[in-house]
Amino acid sequence: VHKITEIGMEKDVLAENRRLAQTNHRRLTGKGIRSIDVMGSIGAGKTALIVRMAQELTKRGLRVAAIAGDVTGEDDYTIFRSAGIPALNVNTGTECHLDAHLIEHALEQLDLSLFDVLFIENVGNLVCPADFPLGTDKRVVVISVTEGDDMVNKHPMIFLDSDLAILNKIDLVPVLDVDVERLKRDYAKLRRGETLHITSAKTGEGVVETLRTLGFDV
Amino acid sequence: VHKITEIGMEKDVLAENRRLAQTNHRRLTGKGIRSIDVMGSIGAGKTALIVRMAQELTKRGLRVAAIAGDVTGEDDYTIFRSAGIPALNVNTGTECHLDAHLIEHALEQLDLSLFDVLFIENVGNLVCPADFPLGTDKRVVVISVTEGDDMVNKHPMIFLDSDLAILNKIDLVPVLDVDVERLKRDYAKLRRGETLHITSAKTGEGVVETLRTLGFDV
Repeated sequence: VHKITEIGMEKDVLAENRRLAQTNHRRLTGKGIRSIDVMGSIGAGKTALIVRMAQELTKRGLRVAAIAGDVTGEDDYTIFRSAGIPALNVNTGTECHLDAHLIEHALEQLDLSLFDVLFIENVGNLVCPADFPLGTDKRVVVISVTEGDDMVNKHPMIFLDSDLAILNKIDLVPVLDVDVERLKRDYAKLRRGETLHITSAKTGEGVVETLRTLGFDV
Repeated sequence: VHKITEIGMEKDVLAENRRLAQTNHRRLTGKGIRSIDVMGSIGAGKTALIVRMAQELTKRGLRVAAIAGDVTGEDDYTIFRSAGIPALNVNTGTECHLDAHLIEHALEQLDLSLFDVLFIENVGNLVCPADFPLGTDKRVVVISVTEGDDMVNKHPMIFLDSDLAILNKIDLVPVLDVDVERLKRDYAKLRRGETLHITSAKTGEGVVETLRTLGFDV
């Protein structure tokens, strides 16, 4: 009996994804668009955080669009549209992550001359998206204080494969039994001294600082 | 360019998993063990809920063991052991779910004559575990109120593929902006009138009722 866990992800699939990711990246940068892949667990507040970041960037005159990646449905897409953010919905069907090919098609549907910044919200998952870069400038991972203080230790790969990590819903710490210092410590250890960003999409805390670290002049 | 999302999961992998799941199930029932696969999102409180359920069952004289499935590390395993529950740690490496083959090997390491009930905590993920039954009597999915009220709508597959669904951390509703009624409604609609179970692993609310629905005489 072969080991099932070793089959799933074939090397040429990953290589093909990486090739398409490079094509996507050239296409976006060619149009002067800065792009961010927002990965992270389900319910970590990715959508709300993107809305907050988009609002800050819009205030500074930047034109922001979003791609909402979900297995099914269009809940996040609807939230983006309600917040006035031009958005596209991408359903993955049964897959637990977006991939560069899905984004290639999504980019074909957007008029890239209309935007300066593109947020891509990946499927809520701390495992699958790590291996599939989409071709964005930056990859961000979002977790929340509601998920317990062992998230970094449990899922090192996605924290290693991303450029920046955010601990969201910090406003809920007073009512939760969660050791934020452990999360910060685990992340700093894994990333050799880098800082875990702390935000609240609800109150706006930490959002501007995070955008600055992402290279935006806000 | 072929569609990447269509490659990943090959039919024979799923069929082989199903065959092994049947073997696991025969093995467990042959020893008189009742088994429950606890799936659900990251940080939904699966570990804490299993500990609570184990405590209730232990009070009634049942001998409970647990298998902790995680991508890496042994955080959940350690919690089970600290709570006095005999446990086994299974790491999936890069995979986002347990599979029947991993459980086959785990069962080889347990003295099945020592237990009446086995909880298997799957990797925290609302997408991947759905396609991979492990051979347990029941499959339970756990979400929490912190994840927003669109979870059922976003991830119908896992709710369709499980026997019972639990909405955990109900104690946090007063401090969250979450529409519990929407979750109940979406679930009842998806499952043709079935009830979404409501629990708090923290206060113990709903735990005994859930065990009763799972067929335990508690």
